[in-house]
Amino acid sequence: MDSIANLILNLGQQAKKASRSLRTIDTDTKNSVLGNIIANLKKNQESILVANKKDLAAGKSSGLDDALIDRLMLNPERISGIIESLEQIVSLPDPIGETTDLEYRPSGIQIGKMRVPIGVIGIIYESRPNVTIDAAALCLKSGNAVILRGGSEAIHSNLALYQCIKDALIDAGLDANAVQIIDTTEREAVTKLVQASDHVDAIIPRGGKGLIENVSAHARMPVIKHLHGVCHTYLDKEADSQKAIDIAFNGKTRRYGVCNATETLLVHKGLKSGTLDQLINLYVKEGVELRGCRESQKHSNKIIAATEDDWSEEYLAPILSVRIVNSLDEAISHIEKYGSSHTDAIVTEDKTRAQKFLKEVDSSSVMVNASTAFADGFEYGLGAEIGISTDKFHVRGPVGLEGLTSQKYIVLGDGHTRP
Amino acid sequence: MDSIANLILNLGQQAKKASRSLRTIDTDTKNSVLGNIIANLKKNQESILVANKKDLAAGKSSGLDDALIDRLMLNPERISGIIESLEQIVSLPDPIGETTDLEYRPSGIQIGKMRVPIGVIGIIYESRPNVTIDAAALCLKSGNAVILRGGSEAIHSNLALYQCIKDALIDAGLDANAVQIIDTTEREAVTKLVQASDHVDAIIPRGGKGLIENVSAHARMPVIKHLHGVCHTYLDKEADSQKAIDIAFNGKTRRYGVCNATETLLVHKGLKSGTLDQLINLYVKEGVELRGCRESQKHSNKIIAATEDDWSEEYLAPILSVRIVNSLDEAISHIEKYGSSHTDAIVTEDKTRAQKFLKEVDSSSVMVNASTAFADGFEYGLGAEIGISTDKFHVRGPVGLEGLTSQKYIVLGDGHTRP
Repeated sequence: MDSIANLILNLGQQAKKASRSLRTIDTDTKNSVLGNIIANLKKNQESILVANKKDLAAGKSSGLDDALIDRLMLNPERISGIIESLEQIVSLPDPIGETTDLEYRPSGIQIGKMRVPIGVIGIIYESRPNVTIDAAALCLKSGNAVILRGGSEAIHSNLALYQCIKDALIDAGLDANAVQIIDTTEREAVTKLVQASDHVDAIIPRGGKGLIENVSAHARMPVIKHLHGVCHTYLDKEADSQKAIDIAFNGKTRRYGVCNATETLLVHKGLKSGTLDQLINLYVKEGVELRGCRESQKHSNKIIAATEDDWSEEYLAPILSVRIVNSLDEAISHIEKYGSSHTDAIVTEDKTRAQKFLKEVDSSSVMVNASTAFADGFEYGLGAEIGISTDKFHVRGPVGLEGLTSQKYIVLGDGHTRP
Repeated sequence: MDSIANLILNLGQQAKKASRSLRTIDTDTKNSVLGNIIANLKKNQESILVANKKDLAAGKSSGLDDALIDRLMLNPERISGIIESLEQIVSLPDPIGETTDLEYRPSGIQIGKMRVPIGVIGIIYESRPNVTIDAAALCLKSGNAVILRGGSEAIHSNLALYQCIKDALIDAGLDANAVQIIDTTEREAVTKLVQASDHVDAIIPRGGKGLIENVSAHARMPVIKHLHGVCHTYLDKEADSQKAIDIAFNGKTRRYGVCNATETLLVHKGLKSGTLDQLINLYVKEGVELRGCRESQKHSNKIIAATEDDWSEEYLAPILSVRIVNSLDEAISHIEKYGSSHTDAIVTEDKTRAQKFLKEVDSSSVMVNASTAFADGFEYGLGAEIGISTDKFHVRGPVGLEGLTSQKYIVLGDGHTRP
């Protein structure tokens, strides 16, 4: 067996073993590990920043663009942010062991469900060192062992951060293999990891579309995936003008590079006159490039013609596609055809039309009179999130601690046999 | 494109289209389709039995064994059974549209979850014609379109039953493609179906281990799978003797050929003296072959030596493996090593030991003082079931209507934008 295969096999076996002990540790122990990580991050801040400088220097000399360098970069402020996120995870309730729906059946047995960890989770992510800590902390709190594989550009930063985690586990008397990191930057390691279904129960790829599609195509275990967000805001003919303007403007311009940003504006042809024109002026003032259908172009010479590709594009940039539709049904059909089932919003004062939109749009979040920018674990009350799932299986929408768990049935009898 | 690929593409596109309309039909319409199917089964009973006779004759001449012929066989009584199961599905609450966990967030928006269909489900099953109706009914009630692929030996029976479904859909004014059947017996159709991830959202294989492993290895969409059941009953040193005997005997002997049958009996060496001997006598009288560890063989010369393979064998027959263990931990480790994470039971009067077993045994159902024979959708109050999932993802344990659904977040605001 070659050395990479051997490495992954070892990591997998060790993780499986660690996951057995993690299954039953109590909340205080989990929180004390997280507390130890916080202490270690503070204590080792200097050496973490030195390791990060090494990555930054290598990244610059190999020509990483500014956005990637920015993601890769750590500084005291960002380390404080990581610590804040850890403190938040400490404060979240522990989902494991919670028993629900316990009820007596006619046979006399009692049936309920107990929440349990998934087991071993593999996380493959790009060069954002904060994910190393976030992912480890969410997995630990949910009782899962984890194998981390960060982007090769962040290898020194990740190893320095990982040392803080490993020491924290050992100091708390836990199996240090509860969190492991793949310390080779060979691509082959990813291929072997997603095939290790004997030891790894789920894979979470965090990164661009290419990474996620590649992992999904080859993984032999379930994948919790966060695909792209082509989010729509639809301004209905029954929309309140001011709400329409506020929501559409906020959804596009609050932040451009995020998956919950509105990428397409759908406008009912009967929207109160002047509303769209006001909105166009605001966008133009903000520097948003508008690409629209022929009908929309009648509203402004600032709107350039959209191509067919525009409707399914996740711009992640100050660009917005605009389409005038003749009906609510046409809006829903457009979303069905071009959307990515991430987040879509309607603005309307008509409750029946709102209900229809809520029921018929098949996305992980469907909104009425609210900005798509709200699609976020923190805003939904989940605390930290490990991504936003666009799958329909297991977990959908923002993925917090509960998304990293499963449930089992528990059955309580008193000598009951089945007739 | 070859003709099989073309067939599956057409079925997939038609199913996807039908699933859109199914998403929003009301409960009364769903129930009226199920009522129509019942009427059609009664009306067409003769022609169904004629078609079934054709399959039986072909099966016999091709040498199908008695068990398979029995599964394939329909008669008026079995058709009544199918109708009863349909009536039960009519009486179950409709999960779709149910909104839960609606609450206000500090931002002022309201967040909740709405239950929705998965979309298009492919079901691949062996030659049990009743699955054709059961699967179609469960999918319809949960708002899913379905593509059925039954075993080739049942093709005439399945087509006759399918006609009852198709007519029922048309009579209710619904898209007849809500339920489709693959009418070729070519194996290639299965391969193409499990690759059709653009149109099929989930696959449910129902059948033997070979079928399920083959589907899982090739499917490009999530698979809800029912693997084998190597179920354990563990008699703790704190067990009540009578309960121990009742539960262990019922778990093994109630029915042999089912996945929730106890296949291995684990006995604490400190179990009240005489209990195991009484139990052995009962098994022997019932004709159960016993294969045990060396220690267990000291109890009776009727126990033959178990091999290492025995511990992971799903007998589905009057055979039981027996092992004496030194501790509760040893029992849990045995289950972890050899079990299939289906259903495992402890018999004990000690609550702490029961809790430890409940927490640490990682199976879809974990039981205290009850027979493994209870692991069943009907006994759990789910109504009809489409299988028992041994996966940890999406749904675990008996799969009823809810297992065929997903949830989406709904967000209600009044012009809210995110700061």
